[in-house]
Amino acid sequence: MNEILRYELGHEPSPLQDELAIEEPLEIRVKGKAVSVTMRTPGHDRELAAGFLLSEGIIKSNDDVVDIEPCKHDTVGNIVNVTLAARTIVDFDRLTRHVFASSSCGLCGKATIDSILQKIDPVKSGPTIDASTFMTLGEKLGRVQPTFARTGGLHAAALFTTGGELLVAHEDVGRHNAVDKVIGHALMNDMLPLDRHVLLVSGRASFEIMQKSLAAMIPIVAAISAPSTLAVDFARESRQTVIGFLRGQRMNIYSGAERVRFTS
Amino acid sequence: MNEILRYELGHEPSPLQDELAIEEPLEIRVKGKAVSVTMRTPGHDRELAAGFLLSEGIIKSNDDVVDIEPCKHDTVGNIVNVTLAARTIVDFDRLTRHVFASSSCGLCGKATIDSILQKIDPVKSGPTIDASTFMTLGEKLGRVQPTFARTGGLHAAALFTTGGELLVAHEDVGRHNAVDKVIGHALMNDMLPLDRHVLLVSGRASFEIMQKSLAAMIPIVAAISAPSTLAVDFARESRQTVIGFLRGQRMNIYSGAERVRFTS
Repeated sequence: MNEILRYELGHEPSPLQDELAIEEPLEIRVKGKAVSVTMRTPGHDRELAAGFLLSEGIIKSNDDVVDIEPCKHDTVGNIVNVTLAARTIVDFDRLTRHVFASSSCGLCGKATIDSILQKIDPVKSGPTIDASTFMTLGEKLGRVQPTFARTGGLHAAALFTTGGELLVAHEDVGRHNAVDKVIGHALMNDMLPLDRHVLLVSGRASFEIMQKSLAAMIPIVAAISAPSTLAVDFARESRQTVIGFLRGQRMNIYSGAERVRFTS
Repeated sequence: MNEILRYELGHEPSPLQDELAIEEPLEIRVKGKAVSVTMRTPGHDRELAAGFLLSEGIIKSNDDVVDIEPCKHDTVGNIVNVTLAARTIVDFDRLTRHVFASSSCGLCGKATIDSILQKIDPVKSGPTIDASTFMTLGEKLGRVQPTFARTGGLHAAALFTTGGELLVAHEDVGRHNAVDKVIGHALMNDMLPLDRHVLLVSGRASFEIMQKSLAAMIPIVAAISAPSTLAVDFARESRQTVIGFLRGQRMNIYSGAERVRFTS
């Protein structure tokens, strides 16, 4: 459980015990070689590995699998070793999607966060933003999301000033792509670092979204839906503010509440 | 625009012109080498590439980029070539995530679908399913989604018989993982091929979800939200049924309507 701050416009912010969806990396190894690292919710990792290998065409049936077991040398439980039947030939060169060039990927839980934070400094302490400003962001994004209105099938991301001015918004079938487009726009227009800005995403806030925003030095990320555990852990270490469930006149603050100015 | 079939319980199904969110692959090449293939909505591909390269740590500022241009030899517009400043050193070995082992990934629009269909046969013509059965699936999935109820932050996938019986359901922060877990469960329990089954997903139906379901020979995929263009294109070629916006007593049928029995 996480202690978070719940806020509704016109009320005092109140602390709350909150449960988040768990997000952690899983590395799938076949014949000792990492073939995938996916950010997943722990549990049923053997099923996940089996389903992944089927859809990648590596296995065709249960007979191809001898064993799927957690790696004994991995104390955090984020690696599974798949032992295939001797006759099952794996063409590693054909594995073009989801495949990692390096087998020492390092993306395993805590280690990942540490290694990224070694490369990118945490964000600076400023700026602050009025709590009431957050309540206006969703509507502003909604006004410039034309495709979502027609298709209902897109994610969106938008960059705002701390005064609530929308600077750029993009839509995409992939939520990470929408964020990349927004940050890429800023980079191409010499707006970096985005250290006085707010990123709003239409869905959930994942680890990868926090990582992308930190690369652009964005101090505040707001999401219409929930953040994951790893997103919040990452944000706390990188000193980013994470807002979730930003709907109507309410929001939850998961980290970096010192950047939010509450007005009564 | 797509011609689809809209159906509401107690009414006749009616054809409708519908617009879908466009999903196509984008290959990002740096120094002639493919570093990423992502399923994206076309448009602002230069921004997407710039944002991706920033978040991967390949570039730090706009000064690192000389040019981002569509590949001249790619008629479908799904490849961008990034030219970096001569002084910018790329450590390709460090690019562990999103990176492709092969530079000839083949995942470029129409070519992809063809190459996958060459490997996996289209699904067989049967079975059929009562339209009214679809209307019961969402509620059955909701009953076994405990984490979503608590956190609001998870995707879910479930496997049903054509009679509407729920066989297995899984939740995950990643929607592809939820599908992998369901299909992996089926594989490990010798339930393959799933050629008399329905897969329900809590969010949208993407190309990858159709591809995963085809690997398990699932003929019918239903989604609470919208499918993408590529999901529907893929389903039509693989003769799969795609249902979208399955909410309350309504649904849209995007392909394979011959498997749905309408009762008046």
